[in-house]
Amino acid sequence: CFSETTLSAPCPINGLPIVRNVSELPQDNYGRPGLSHMTVAGSVLHGMKEVEIWLQTFAPGSETPIHRHSCEEVFVVLKGNATLYLAETHGSSPGKPIEFPIFANSTVHIPINDAHQVKNTGREDLQMLVIISRPPIKVFTYDDWFMPHTAARLKVPYYWDEQCVQESQKDEL
Amino acid sequence: CFSETTLSAPCPINGLPIVRNVSELPQDNYGRPGLSHMTVAGSVLHGMKEVEIWLQTFAPGSETPIHRHSCEEVFVVLKGNATLYLAETHGSSPGKPIEFPIFANSTVHIPINDAHQVKNTGREDLQMLVIISRPPIKVFTYDDWFMPHTAARLKVPYYWDEQCVQESQKDEL
Ligand SMILES: [Zn+2]
Ligand SMILES: [Zn+2]
Repeated sequence: CFSETTLSAPCPINGLPIVRNVSELPQDNYGRPGLSHMTVAGSVLHGMKEVEIWLQTFAPGSETPIHRHSCEEVFVVLKGNATLYLAETHGSSPGKPIEFPIFANSTVHIPINDAHQVKNTGREDLQMLVIISRPPIKVFTYDDWFMPHTAARLKVPYYWDEQCVQESQKDEL
Repeated sequence: CFSETTLSAPCPINGLPIVRNVSELPQDNYGRPGLSHMTVAGSVLHGMKEVEIWLQTFAPGSETPIHRHSCEEVFVVLKGNATLYLAETHGSSPGKPIEFPIFANSTVHIPINDAHQVKNTGREDLQMLVIISRPPIKVFTYDDWFMPHTAARLKVPYYWDEQCVQESQKDEL
């Protein structure tokens, strides 16, 4: 019981249809060159409470911000090759990250609160499913690896949740 | 800092390596004909606390039990065609289910506590990623759709967690 309009609307308000065609979900780069983001099953968008799933594609050379969050995060890489940068040190700033090659058919687990960045260092698109816990995501971003944790900026709602958080707040007025 | 031995061991005890090749993960049918199950990122197996991810393949004609659980569950269908049976009524038994066709590149959300079953009603393998919250999974199974909820059997630990739960209990003695 859902219409195409509901499915492709940016902020579906009637909850999460049981079966959805991923190719019909809205996608956007949210101002980040080379990114295609789709929220496959979301908290703000679809009423998920405990897990949220994204499908993200990164053009060669594009990347996530350096960031951290206190939720669990897992990637399942569907296509392409890339580099994960992960700062496992626990000083006053992230510090020099360790580099991990990631590749199609690999899965990646980001330790809670470790600063990290994914960059498409390959020659084709990187496509991956991203699974997070405790949505919606609350992200701290860094300008560089040596920026103090205390200077990291909290970005919440995150880019793809922004429009729908604003609409739901409007609804409450 | 992990060896191949750790990766392919059924119960890796040193936590979750950052990057893992999904094709090298252990797979088994756990006594269910036509099933291939892999725990991509697990609670009992890898120390995940809030989400768990499986890669499951169902041969034509094979199916899950009729079951329910109180965690969130999302499927992302990678290959094949199948039918989701979902009992949305809330009487004393699941009752006659609604049928939803599911297909490659669809995503499915199972409402909490609704009894459901996936059957590969297509002609090729069905492959899907399964994401659950609050692992490890605690499953109630039904012999048929008209079995009373009170007669459903709680199966915990679930099949793919069994061996490692037993090993960790042994370690604690
Ligand atoms: Zn992240
Ligand atoms: Zn289920």
